[in-house]
Amino acid sequence: MAFIVFEGPDGAGKSSQALALLKQMESTGYPVILTREPGGTPLGESLRTVLKSSPAIEPLSELLLFLAARAELVETIIKPALTNNINVISDRFTASTLAYQGHGQGLNLTDITRLNQLVCSGLSPDLTILLDIPADLISSRKSKDTQDRYDSASGAFHNKVRQGYLSIASQETSQWLVLDATKPKATLSEEIWTKIRPLL
Amino acid sequence: MAFIVFEGPDGAGKSSQALALLKQMESTGYPVILTREPGGTPLGESLRTVLKSSPAIEPLSELLLFLAARAELVETIIKPALTNNINVISDRFTASTLAYQGHGQGLNLTDITRLNQLVCSGLSPDLTILLDIPADLISSRKSKDTQDRYDSASGAFHNKVRQGYLSIASQETSQWLVLDATKPKATLSEEIWTKIRPLL
Repeated sequence: MAFIVFEGPDGAGKSSQALALLKQMESTGYPVILTREPGGTPLGESLRTVLKSSPAIEPLSELLLFLAARAELVETIIKPALTNNINVISDRFTASTLAYQGHGQGLNLTDITRLNQLVCSGLSPDLTILLDIPADLISSRKSKDTQDRYDSASGAFHNKVRQGYLSIASQETSQWLVLDATKPKATLSEEIWTKIRPLL
Repeated sequence: MAFIVFEGPDGAGKSSQALALLKQMESTGYPVILTREPGGTPLGESLRTVLKSSPAIEPLSELLLFLAARAELVETIIKPALTNNINVISDRFTASTLAYQGHGQGLNLTDITRLNQLVCSGLSPDLTILLDIPADLISSRKSKDTQDRYDSASGAFHNKVRQGYLSIASQETSQWLVLDATKPKATLSEEIWTKIRPLL
């Protein structure tokens, strides 16, 4: 069983690659579910709406909302699936919190790590796939109607998030696959499948 | 300046006594605001709706939602008010989390205390007033339309919450006023005002 996470900024192609991996695994006969953060549960989707519709939230409040959505997802979806021999793919997980709320917004990384541990109670991804892309290439890849609250943030913010992701990945290289998200979609899907297959 | 909190089960008369204190302070010429948890801010009220309308949430998710609402309230309402010499009355605060999610639902009290500290960053009530009432007297005092998600919980749950409150109050007696909530409303208001006035 494998728990696989996609990370990177919105617009890097996470959802698309997660879906491609889901289809590849399904067609190869592996039981698998695809979920996302924040969301994936009734509570999580409610909180996703709250997060997307609130123009200004304190960084700490936002952090706790993401963690609440994660706690619900871990307990009601991810852990039960893995226990029942179903692979799990998630679009974002703990590293998003470190990258966005920690490196991006400046909240204490030790606090975030401790909170992630509290919420995950022992669960960690077998592999996190980072779709890395320079900040200035993100906006051109997103359509207007899928832009979220971070889209109006500065390039400097997105760059801090990117460097945060690269820093986290460099500390746990065996559990991370860092890919150049500017490569063609099919090439990336192949690289991902080559890496994932031995884990299943 | 004083930060005063009312605690106790729904139905004990917290809102009523908080309002009486607000009016007493206003009529005596003290600047004061009344707020409540979860709520008091746009985010907090959204989360209050999510909490009240979700039939089943994991205890840890619920804890984190209450903390998110508190972080927002502390940073955007309570701290600015106190800094500007305005007294603050809150209907529920940190002790609710310890009593309901800790003593009631069994989450780790040390984790909750640490999370409360993270969210409050140095802020603590000058006085917490506990309106104490036996579990079996609560339901008869509440109208149907104000019942919330805990109202259907068992008497055993309410009793654990009550004992939790009493335990917390006994550990910090100088910052707590424990009152018998079965006394007449006016008597309680007098006892509260006698205790509060020297703090202002």
